[in-house]
Amino acid sequence: MIAVDWGTSSLRLYRMDDDGLVHERRRSDHGALASKGRFAEVLAREISGWDDPLILMCGMVGGRGGWQEAPYVVCPVGNAELALGMRPMPSSEFPGRSLWIMPGLRDASADAVPDVMRGEETQLAALLDVLPGGSHMVCLPGTHSKWVTVRNGRICRITTAMTGEVYAALRQHSILAQLMPATDGRFDAYAFDAGLRRSAENGGLLHHLFGVRTAGLFQQFSEAALPSYLSGILIGHEIRASGLFPQSPRPALVHLIGNERLLASYAHALRTLGIGVQRHPEDLAARGLHALWRRRSATAATSA
Amino acid sequence: MIAVDWGTSSLRLYRMDDDGLVHERRRSDHGALASKGRFAEVLAREISGWDDPLILMCGMVGGRGGWQEAPYVVCPVGNAELALGMRPMPSSEFPGRSLWIMPGLRDASADAVPDVMRGEETQLAALLDVLPGGSHMVCLPGTHSKWVTVRNGRICRITTAMTGEVYAALRQHSILAQLMPATDGRFDAYAFDAGLRRSAENGGLLHHLFGVRTAGLFQQFSEAALPSYLSGILIGHEIRASGLFPQSPRPALVHLIGNERLLASYAHALRTLGIGVQRHPEDLAARGLHALWRRRSATAATSA
Repeated sequence: MIAVDWGTSSLRLYRMDDDGLVHERRRSDHGALASKGRFAEVLAREISGWDDPLILMCGMVGGRGGWQEAPYVVCPVGNAELALGMRPMPSSEFPGRSLWIMPGLRDASADAVPDVMRGEETQLAALLDVLPGGSHMVCLPGTHSKWVTVRNGRICRITTAMTGEVYAALRQHSILAQLMPATDGRFDAYAFDAGLRRSAENGGLLHHLFGVRTAGLFQQFSEAALPSYLSGILIGHEIRASGLFPQSPRPALVHLIGNERLLASYAHALRTLGIGVQRHPEDLAARGLHALWRRRSATAATSA
Repeated sequence: MIAVDWGTSSLRLYRMDDDGLVHERRRSDHGALASKGRFAEVLAREISGWDDPLILMCGMVGGRGGWQEAPYVVCPVGNAELALGMRPMPSSEFPGRSLWIMPGLRDASADAVPDVMRGEETQLAALLDVLPGGSHMVCLPGTHSKWVTVRNGRICRITTAMTGEVYAALRQHSILAQLMPATDGRFDAYAFDAGLRRSAENGGLLHHLFGVRTAGLFQQFSEAALPSYLSGILIGHEIRASGLFPQSPRPALVHLIGNERLLASYAHALRTLGIGVQRHPEDLAARGLHALWRRRSATAATSA
């Protein structure tokens, strides 16, 4: 089978056997945004040479403005509901093949404003089968960081923080951009930790962001270290508002899913705040698609 | 005399008589950023026809990267110190005239990260002379909103929030930009109030910002109303973190200085949160420059 993780800005493809073992992987910059209006064409090119009859897709490809909108399923959901939520996608461009799209997830529980995910639910699906019962906190850092409460194999709450996007917008399109070198250099742990501590002080995030400017103005950090200071402030605010801290007892560890570089910052921040971490690679999406398909096939076989 | 309020993005000029009465005013887009490297040329053009021998300037014109850096004076300061901090600026381009630049203000009191202002201290100078003794809270909303504690005629604390800049960066350079019309329309009080209420809920600012996207996705507000919702969230977070609320007794009113449109949003927000306001026009800078010059001249006359 072919597993496709088609996010907003990137496209990852995996060729797997029936046991879920990945034999080949490909990666492209043709995310859902760049593929708009020609998803079939992009997919055909990216899987050229792979003749597997089954193609499973997750991510923004199924969102509004994607290839075909797949409805949201509503929390709490476990793998049974996620498997049932997969939608077949008729496509004349791929004769003899079967294409499926994963649903998104919607949390309408507590707030007046719903929260959503698309793609991350498939990464989580790979975890749900292996996590023991009880309550777990999972964080998927990124442009839109997801904080997820899992209870007894079900995704119960989603809280998204726009951390990565705010970082990028300020880094490139604010007065802070003038203070910093054009490209991010090495992670500066000293500046990052100062940002983390700053996030615990009075004044709020909007005030702390202005402090990045004055820290630059009074040369408290080198230009090269300022992006790490900004990152520490933002990630600190994200973690402190994530709902981890009011919990009693506080969770002993947070599961982190994502790419190495980003996970390193979050792992560092969480450990500094006294919380352990367990890291998982971002290609969990492929394993999730495989697991959900197996479950769907088994259910179909039983009910047949 | 000519009073010049030369900010980052705009330039305001006032021709005043000895009693501080404004006879003419001019305005230009040649702020300090746009005037870089040719301040004298821009000033000569903008004051053409005005032959007054005295030119007093405040704002980013005296900042780093401005015409000539004027050192910061350190809080707490009253008008006596501000008047003494004015620096003469030798300029061969204006023979027979006397040019002066106001100092900036630096608050190094509580935090490890200092806070600063440049230009707003001159607007405040016009207020300091007329406010009764005791403690007052002043807010100057804008790209970088200033919250200022005044005690017995002295500026004691400065807290800057990057509210306007974060609004602009997200409005134009984030996923939120796609959800909203290209230009801001009418202020939508319903959406703004919803944003204000949202700012009091759990999850933090970074989470509430993502909620602007989901509110758009699920059509909780019209496209045209989303900018007001975003504005309500940001201004709500700014006000709640401003230090107003922990004070006991809470100040009965906040003095607001700025342009009509922005003050309307802040006045609405503060009143909704049970706090009265008193508005002051942004051309206080001209009155501040006049008052400080009078004080400086009087001091010089006394000590002579």
